[in-house]
Amino acid sequence: MKPFPDENFLLDSDPARTLYHEHAAKMPIIDYHCHLNPQEIAENRRFRNMTEVWLGGDHYKWRAMRANGVTEDYITGDRSDWEKFEKWAETLPYAMRNPLYHWAHLELRRIFGIDQILKPETAREIYEAANEKLAQPEFSAQGLMRRCRVEVVCTTDDPIDDLRYHRQIQQNPFGCQVLPTWRPDNAMAIENPAAWNAYIDRLEAASSVSIGSYTALQEALSVRHDYFAGAGCRLSDHGMDTFFAEPYTDVEIEAIFAKVRAGKSPSAEELLKFRSAMMYDFAVMDYESGWAQQFHIGPLRSNNTRMLERIGRDTGFDSILDERCAIPGNRFFDRLNYNGKLAKSIVYNLNPGDNEVLMTMLYNFNDGSLPGKMQFGAGWWFLDQQVGMTNQLNALSMLGLLSRFVGMLTDSRSFLSYPRHEYFRRILCNLLGEDVRTGRLPRSEMDFLGHIVEDISYNNAKNYFGF
Amino acid sequence: MKPFPDENFLLDSDPARTLYHEHAAKMPIIDYHCHLNPQEIAENRRFRNMTEVWLGGDHYKWRAMRANGVTEDYITGDRSDWEKFEKWAETLPYAMRNPLYHWAHLELRRIFGIDQILKPETAREIYEAANEKLAQPEFSAQGLMRRCRVEVVCTTDDPIDDLRYHRQIQQNPFGCQVLPTWRPDNAMAIENPAAWNAYIDRLEAASSVSIGSYTALQEALSVRHDYFAGAGCRLSDHGMDTFFAEPYTDVEIEAIFAKVRAGKSPSAEELLKFRSAMMYDFAVMDYESGWAQQFHIGPLRSNNTRMLERIGRDTGFDSILDERCAIPGNRFFDRLNYNGKLAKSIVYNLNPGDNEVLMTMLYNFNDGSLPGKMQFGAGWWFLDQQVGMTNQLNALSMLGLLSRFVGMLTDSRSFLSYPRHEYFRRILCNLLGEDVRTGRLPRSEMDFLGHIVEDISYNNAKNYFGF
Amino acid sequence: MKPFPDENFLLDSDPARTLYHEHAAKMPIIDYHCHLNPQEIAENRRFRNMTEVWLGGDHYKWRAMRANGVTEDYITGDRSDWEKFEKWAETLPYAMRNPLYHWAHLELRRIFGIDQILKPETAREIYEAANEKLAQPEFSAQGLMRRCRVEVVCTTDDPIDDLRYHRQIQQNPFGCQVLPTWRPDNAMAIENPAAWNAYIDRLEAASSVSIGSYTALQEALSVRHDYFAGAGCRLSDHGMDTFFAEPYTDVEIEAIFAKVRAGKSPSAEELLKFRSAMMYDFAVMDYESGWAQQFHIGPLRSNNTRMLERIGRDTGFDSILDERCAIPGNRFFDRLNYNGKLAKSIVYNLNPGDNEVLMTMLYNFNDGSLPGKMQFGAGWWFLDQQVGMTNQLNALSMLGLLSRFVGMLTDSRSFLSYPRHEYFRRILCNLLGEDVRTGRLPRSEMDFLGHIVEDISYNNAKNYFGF
Repeated sequence: MKPFPDENFLLDSDPARTLYHEHAAKMPIIDYHCHLNPQEIAENRRFRNMTEVWLGGDHYKWRAMRANGVTEDYITGDRSDWEKFEKWAETLPYAMRNPLYHWAHLELRRIFGIDQILKPETAREIYEAANEKLAQPEFSAQGLMRRCRVEVVCTTDDPIDDLRYHRQIQQNPFGCQVLPTWRPDNAMAIENPAAWNAYIDRLEAASSVSIGSYTALQEALSVRHDYFAGAGCRLSDHGMDTFFAEPYTDVEIEAIFAKVRAGKSPSAEELLKFRSAMMYDFAVMDYESGWAQQFHIGPLRSNNTRMLERIGRDTGFDSILDERCAIPGNRFFDRLNYNGKLAKSIVYNLNPGDNEVLMTMLYNFNDGSLPGKMQFGAGWWFLDQQVGMTNQLNALSMLGLLSRFVGMLTDSRSFLSYPRHEYFRRILCNLLGEDVRTGRLPRSEMDFLGHIVEDISYNNAKNYFGF
Repeated sequence: MKPFPDENFLLDSDPARTLYHEHAAKMPIIDYHCHLNPQEIAENRRFRNMTEVWLGGDHYKWRAMRANGVTEDYITGDRSDWEKFEKWAETLPYAMRNPLYHWAHLELRRIFGIDQILKPETAREIYEAANEKLAQPEFSAQGLMRRCRVEVVCTTDDPIDDLRYHRQIQQNPFGCQVLPTWRPDNAMAIENPAAWNAYIDRLEAASSVSIGSYTALQEALSVRHDYFAGAGCRLSDHGMDTFFAEPYTDVEIEAIFAKVRAGKSPSAEELLKFRSAMMYDFAVMDYESGWAQQFHIGPLRSNNTRMLERIGRDTGFDSILDERCAIPGNRFFDRLNYNGKLAKSIVYNLNPGDNEVLMTMLYNFNDGSLPGKMQFGAGWWFLDQQVGMTNQLNALSMLGLLSRFVGMLTDSRSFLSYPRHEYFRRILCNLLGEDVRTGRLPRSEMDFLGHIVEDISYNNAKNYFGF
Repeated sequence: MKPFPDENFLLDSDPARTLYHEHAAKMPIIDYHCHLNPQEIAENRRFRNMTEVWLGGDHYKWRAMRANGVTEDYITGDRSDWEKFEKWAETLPYAMRNPLYHWAHLELRRIFGIDQILKPETAREIYEAANEKLAQPEFSAQGLMRRCRVEVVCTTDDPIDDLRYHRQIQQNPFGCQVLPTWRPDNAMAIENPAAWNAYIDRLEAASSVSIGSYTALQEALSVRHDYFAGAGCRLSDHGMDTFFAEPYTDVEIEAIFAKVRAGKSPSAEELLKFRSAMMYDFAVMDYESGWAQQFHIGPLRSNNTRMLERIGRDTGFDSILDERCAIPGNRFFDRLNYNGKLAKSIVYNLNPGDNEVLMTMLYNFNDGSLPGKMQFGAGWWFLDQQVGMTNQLNALSMLGLLSRFVGMLTDSRSFLSYPRHEYFRRILCNLLGEDVRTGRLPRSEMDFLGHIVEDISYNNAKNYFGF
């Protein structure tokens, strides 16, 4: 029986196979955006079993299990690890055509050397074989990263984070650079004055700046921004509904700051103005530091209040928003560009209906200062699958320069998700190879295409971020 | 010359053919949502000719004919049946690539055994051959349903309907269950106070409840809901622009009720609040009865006022709306879920740009109580075609569990449209089979895939609705 | 080495090849919407080199170069023609998968007979070979049009244009009809009162009508509309964000006219009402003249203020808007249709997410008066590429009658872009041919399909516009 996935998985043509095996496969991984816990890396965490390392915190799998009629006690509840794994093994065959089916088997093969199909009949055997591997030291957090040839990861961190684990890793290198990413969403979250004020108090402590005004808030953030830069940070990241680019005056922003700092809730208009000011000022900081800025737009989070109260955020109850983005997005980048303060930028969208709007918007602001300054980010979250990635690559190709793409990232909380880079590279090579096979691209340029594949897999990110 | 459509129509690979011929083809049909007239079934209607049975009431064909330059007298006017059929036969070749071209030939072959291409040269011969069949008793309404191996159909009925024809059929069974569906759109339509009040008067009579308050309205509806349940109803259905989930108080709703019951028009805000209350209360009734609830969202109806005045509604002048649905949709389901009142739900959308938004929204509310509780419904109306169905199946696959899908329904007013189930099954098998052929799914799991195909074709619906 | 693009470029199946080579390829070109400068045609402009004819004014190429890290001096600045061409040749390989890569090589082969791949190594040779051709008289403006077998072009002209060059061409025929198109956007642009008043003054002069009221404005426009009709105009064209169909009264419109004519800015509501009135009245004029009306909706223009100030409009800083169109679009056409004033209409959209909304909207207004009265226009601007055109053809096919499509237009400012008709025809034939190959269309109907291909390539446009 042919193995699954086999060596030519997703590679439907000879040119695709050449591009993948001769060019993509050999490139190391730069995972420039993820949600790994730096403490776990620094402490080189070991995992007690597959349930912990594979199902723990993975809300993609949890959603699939709930849809398959698995009750919460087997998902986030107090059932045993084996019982949870067994329910996952029962669910997986019902997830055929879902990316989970592909990812799961790629991860079993590539990381654990297990080439069986996971289903109820094989569950026990796979569980034990994988657990046996996990008991070995080379399957620790750092071991898994080395095994996957990860050269750089960028974690996602709050401005008040002291980055001690990043520093600890830098002092004890293990072959993979672990850099922080500046994610200041909390500093902007005035919609909840109590939580925001508590946060601002912590920011005061972290920055040694007394934050009695918006100007002081920016000063405090600037201190922390420099601190992150000192720890090797090269990117910021922002999670947003859509872009914020409402006109405002400094006087208005100071007044909103004072109101919320005094514990009062902002109006909808004030919230929008404040966010617009913060986003602009964040962007200027990134420009001044030579960083790239990332914008993740379009989720609608925590929609199931019952489960939010029970198990909290990021547990599988988020979905896609349908907010318009063309006008605020263009305004946001235009103001920065006009003032000579536009940093390298990457926009990821969750609603695939925005692909063409955002892709063409971004290309309004390329200025020739470097190739691919404005990046339309890789298929993200719900779109990180065959159809979503193909649509992202097609929009990028048809409306811009695929060749200048900084490529894939996992956006993952798991040490097992690096095969998604392989998944992406295979899809990329398949698209290009199919074009060669059918005469849509010249076969004479296969070497150049190989060079493009290597660039998108690795070189572009390395050059773009300056690692 | 190879027949059209041939036995491997839409089945491009060997695995697709295996899945279809060995698994899909043998399953009977459950058509859990349609607009057949129960009287015609009960009275076992006979059809005088192909024009009556095929063109009568079929606004899909009418739109195509108008676009082809056919004047209204040949469509809904007083031309002879033959003249109308002839114009349809002239139009059909110009509809190549439209689903009408496929449906028409599938219907001719499967139901009438006619394997010619319909075009002006063959029109007379086909007309006469088909009419000859229609003259036979086994081509009656019930005969057509038996011929197509239809096991269950659910019609679409108003709460005030006495369901006499459903009862008549139950007393005279013919091998196909005919169940009512609760479609209470009229009870909510306060935007036209005169028509609504007349309707409420009829609802009073049907329920024997005097409707002097919103509470009484709910009581009357509840009486009828029980009546429908007693007649075997297992589903509700709602036609809506988008979801309604505006906050309201009981006092507000009673005031709006009183205002409109007194003949005054509601404001836009009152309309939205009233709809939000009604939709919530309808949903609770469905939950209490263990029904599934269906939501058809996204049409913009009767856009051609000239033709509306001349020939009325549902005549081919409807199109697709572009209203946002993420926020109200999540709010609607969240409130029900929070209160423990969320019934099994199916959402069908008309705007394909909402596929991913709705699909991910629905999966926020799976609770593990049964597999596939929240269903992203089959490609509907304008989307009930190759591209639309493929996109629906892909969104469902990539973002959820295709295997748990309750599958196809005709949504049709015609006794000839059952081959659309075949059409759907072929497209489904082709997608899965292509994945096997190209190694995206493991060939070793063909048996399991066959089981999934049988489930989606028949078993899932049977279990989900409890037929 | 196989040439690129080869003779079966984009034609993946035998039926596709038959349809293209035996049917599509022989048809002449009707380019019923473009932005060629009629003066250049009349004066039979010669081009000094490839940079002038190929890169001059081509903001598609400019965007690609900026994204590739080319600075503005090589794009719109003062670098030498050769230096600019060299930068373009460096950029092109990085544009693989972008339509520019296909268009560039089709243009080199078809027009200049150059069959090399353009890249840095071949740049000089290609530049010189092409320049040598351009030095020949048959590579003049008229020569290029004859070479590409262009039978009709419709330019895009302002109502105040005296059309002297169109008349000059009519008096000196060269084998290609050059007709004007009525594009009255300036007459509606009251958002800038100063510019609008200056324009209205020029319209007064052109029409010999004193424009002191809205009624007089319509009279002046009507004089010019007749003038255009006298010069052979058969189409209007309108560039718009979305449709305008706000209710208004004549009194309101006269008041808005008076206000803006006095130099005051209209409110947002006044602007919308005025546009709604103008669009309705323009449409009635087109109906009365038997013209077709074109609507280009969905761009968001000049988003980069820095570059707007530096190099002006139409320089590569436009993108796609995400405005809703279903309700205003239906209202707009419904009012015209109700009043018996709906002209033949073509709608082109820039946001691909509107494809199905607009396609189904248009088919609400076919009235059987001629085949294909309401047209869903070809993939436009950013969508004029493989994926965009395929999506447009699929929406048209699945929701309407592909066979009645008036087909391709270049919308181009360049004399070199006629191979885009070939590009379109190949994609069309490939779609149809693939359906035949896979049994989705009957092979027995190949002759009829050939006839459809000829119609879409040429006959439909000829008949629809009445050339």
